[in-house]
Amino acid sequence: MSDFATPRRKADTLYFQLAEELAQAIASGLLKRGEKLPSIRKLSTQRQVSLSTVMEAYRELEDRGLIEARPQSGFYVCNAAQLFKAPALTQPPSAPREVVTPAALWPYHASDIHKLKVDFGFAVLSPELFPIQQLQRLLAQITRYQPRILAEYGKPPGDMELRRHIARRALAWGGHFEAEDVLITHGCIEALNLCLRAVTKPGDVVAIESPTYFGLLQILESFQLKALEIPTHPQTGISIEALELATRNDQVKACLLIPNFSNPLGSLMPDENKKRLVELLASRDIPLIEDDIYGEFYRHGNRPRPAKAFDTSDNVMLCSSFTKVLAPGMRIGWVVGGKWTRAIEKLKFINTYSTPLHSQQTISRFLENGGYDHHLRRLRRAVAEQVDGAVDAIRRYFPADTRLNVPQGGFALWVELPEAINTRELLDLALVEGISFAPGELFSPSHSYQNCMRICCVEAWTTKHERAIQRLGEFCQQLLDRGRAPDRVQSAAQPIG
Amino acid sequence: MSDFATPRRKADTLYFQLAEELAQAIASGLLKRGEKLPSIRKLSTQRQVSLSTVMEAYRELEDRGLIEARPQSGFYVCNAAQLFKAPALTQPPSAPREVVTPAALWPYHASDIHKLKVDFGFAVLSPELFPIQQLQRLLAQITRYQPRILAEYGKPPGDMELRRHIARRALAWGGHFEAEDVLITHGCIEALNLCLRAVTKPGDVVAIESPTYFGLLQILESFQLKALEIPTHPQTGISIEALELATRNDQVKACLLIPNFSNPLGSLMPDENKKRLVELLASRDIPLIEDDIYGEFYRHGNRPRPAKAFDTSDNVMLCSSFTKVLAPGMRIGWVVGGKWTRAIEKLKFINTYSTPLHSQQTISRFLENGGYDHHLRRLRRAVAEQVDGAVDAIRRYFPADTRLNVPQGGFALWVELPEAINTRELLDLALVEGISFAPGELFSPSHSYQNCMRICCVEAWTTKHERAIQRLGEFCQQLLDRGRAPDRVQSAAQPIG
Repeated sequence: MSDFATPRRKADTLYFQLAEELAQAIASGLLKRGEKLPSIRKLSTQRQVSLSTVMEAYRELEDRGLIEARPQSGFYVCNAAQLFKAPALTQPPSAPREVVTPAALWPYHASDIHKLKVDFGFAVLSPELFPIQQLQRLLAQITRYQPRILAEYGKPPGDMELRRHIARRALAWGGHFEAEDVLITHGCIEALNLCLRAVTKPGDVVAIESPTYFGLLQILESFQLKALEIPTHPQTGISIEALELATRNDQVKACLLIPNFSNPLGSLMPDENKKRLVELLASRDIPLIEDDIYGEFYRHGNRPRPAKAFDTSDNVMLCSSFTKVLAPGMRIGWVVGGKWTRAIEKLKFINTYSTPLHSQQTISRFLENGGYDHHLRRLRRAVAEQVDGAVDAIRRYFPADTRLNVPQGGFALWVELPEAINTRELLDLALVEGISFAPGELFSPSHSYQNCMRICCVEAWTTKHERAIQRLGEFCQQLLDRGRAPDRVQSAAQPIG
Repeated sequence: MSDFATPRRKADTLYFQLAEELAQAIASGLLKRGEKLPSIRKLSTQRQVSLSTVMEAYRELEDRGLIEARPQSGFYVCNAAQLFKAPALTQPPSAPREVVTPAALWPYHASDIHKLKVDFGFAVLSPELFPIQQLQRLLAQITRYQPRILAEYGKPPGDMELRRHIARRALAWGGHFEAEDVLITHGCIEALNLCLRAVTKPGDVVAIESPTYFGLLQILESFQLKALEIPTHPQTGISIEALELATRNDQVKACLLIPNFSNPLGSLMPDENKKRLVELLASRDIPLIEDDIYGEFYRHGNRPRPAKAFDTSDNVMLCSSFTKVLAPGMRIGWVVGGKWTRAIEKLKFINTYSTPLHSQQTISRFLENGGYDHHLRRLRRAVAEQVDGAVDAIRRYFPADTRLNVPQGGFALWVELPEAINTRELLDLALVEGISFAPGELFSPSHSYQNCMRICCVEAWTTKHERAIQRLGEFCQQLLDRGRAPDRVQSAAQPIG
């Protein structure tokens, strides 16, 4: 139902057409998982295209997580990748709309959440994945030698050492900012609140990916901001072309995106797109609020660069945190606010004043001791295994027409089920057996994606999880069967549980 | 310039007139500090009024902190009380206005704040006043035996044990709510933000005390709310009569008050006023947001009851915290949201999600161990001594016409200087010597009170503080002298420091 154009420029290139063809072959099973692809030289000769065209096509497929380069050997089809058709570019409504979250869509902080046996709903990694003993020792040291720290207000911008670590680590991806530009917050979510408060007023339109994290939608709702859903590609993220069209008039006042491993799609914007995004928004004076909490969860190659890396005009507010990667219980997030740094600092002062110093210093010491990169490597490996487990199980137990984007990073899976399945109904069935996930309609102010679901892979994969996916698959089948037996629709549609 | 009526009913009573007369005698020095008052019986005979009239008059004077009852002995004029004329009922403008905080009014989180030698500006008590060793031990225990706590998101409403303690302690002042009604926040300031977000939208008018805490004004500003300043009495708080007038039409959408030891006035609303306040607002469907962070800092008698104690229709949102009384570095606040509990919980979820569990449990264990009341008694005594020290010094060094409300609780002093003194200019002079305080105009959206200042008594009183007050007194004199020598105005008005 969208009148946005789909990407054009790239689609016209030779390499992209070749990549599409190969992607089709993978999706159809013509190229099997683990199978070796022709060498670059061979394919170049076969297809009579240049070496660089083949190289670019392979890079495109690598970017999409469909193939991988193995050193000294060549290119191979990734595990599981070919088993699903990826969801297509999304087509949300093209008009901005007020965000209204029905109260019933709030199962996520229900007090009976601990009764769940398998929770695929919450994007909260298992405590086992974190270096809790080390954190505990550091915290104990800090408070033993500086007990005053428990009785001192931290200053609003935050602990200088921690801010320095953040600025220093950003150098690796080309981030050029100073410790003084970093403001410490209560998790990334406070940072996002402050950024929105700094650059919008009620009634303003904010452009978002479609689908996007329901928490962002609820923030927009609470500030009475309107959401404009922009078509988004499951692999390459928001459509720059659609965003370009949507920002031709003055309606969009800010853009709130997750360029690296978006939640829930798992899409990763290519650097080229990030650059175009940043230039486009700067030229139109639309601030970009960038949520980068999943940036460290890459599966291949190097850490992807945030859009902020391409920001030459201080127009990007980069928000992130240590909640997903190091210490969920400490709630330490941060923001580099670009030209809004002072305004955001002022808002932090009146939103929560300061962030506990003992928590900030614990994180800071951990970063200092050099164990952080080692921890991240382990965490990435563990999370990737969890995701692989879920992808495999979904392949085995979900209906044949299921579409799935195997993400290049993060730990959320966006699953598109046959249209006859409503995932709210599926959730009702699942909750009775203690299984939870996030139904697709949560991720869109237009309540689209009713046949989609987000599966978060937050724990080590076990038979318990395998069994839960199997049950979900059975429930899917149940709903599909019901769809084919019209006389039974009535009873099955009654609320369950 | 106000067209609000000053209190009438009470002023017409016999006891009030008698109390006023005695207050005058104390203010003029006719009754000296420490002097014994006539017995109730004697005064009753002398003045030919009933015993109960005298008793009520004495109670009124006690409420104002002017006299105190000594067991088995009688009534005495309080120390220092009679040395100042108290400031009168304030007379703010009667129209609501947008709050605009000039950037220059932000010296309070300046990065060079540590260069201050004596900081009377910040309402942050010295770390020495808190049981930091005990807190440190409890925190270490909690994280040693449950290291997972550092890797777990707390659930948004907060730790159930802590919420139970809060509900249980409220019984002492007649608070009737359950643990389930308490939501834990990042300090009281987050609670106030959430309450305002729950019941207002931009452009709405919020009634406040005048003067009031500048942080509240900045929150109103950030939400684009208009402030309606209500005349407030330095001893008895907001004028119910004025509020009644101001809420006759539909303009006021919420009321945001500090009934117990308001910041900066130190005023304490009598129970009778609180009851009338709560009834008035309930009858007009105007929610009351009550900030009670100073309630534990009473100097006489028992802990004053929050207005919430008189709330029979869930119309009061009570906000408080452990930041001022127990552990400033932990940022643990809370709110009992009345009929907005669910809305506030939802907003907490998207503002900062949760509050660190390890901090919540540390506070909870401290409350459990029973040392809390002992700590509070010590804290109250220490703070009262600090306030006495400041009052004494101000008496000695400040200009003769200085007015001061010796507060019945809290640790802020509201000082009204002769009109010729502008306290922004005074602050410029003071900062050069490393002395800070909060200038009066910060406390009003109409930037009134330019001859007033707030002095926070946050540290044990020493000669350093004595000397700082002396310097402030000298600067006052300098500004007064300049006012009398017009040819020197030009040069002295230049920015200093």
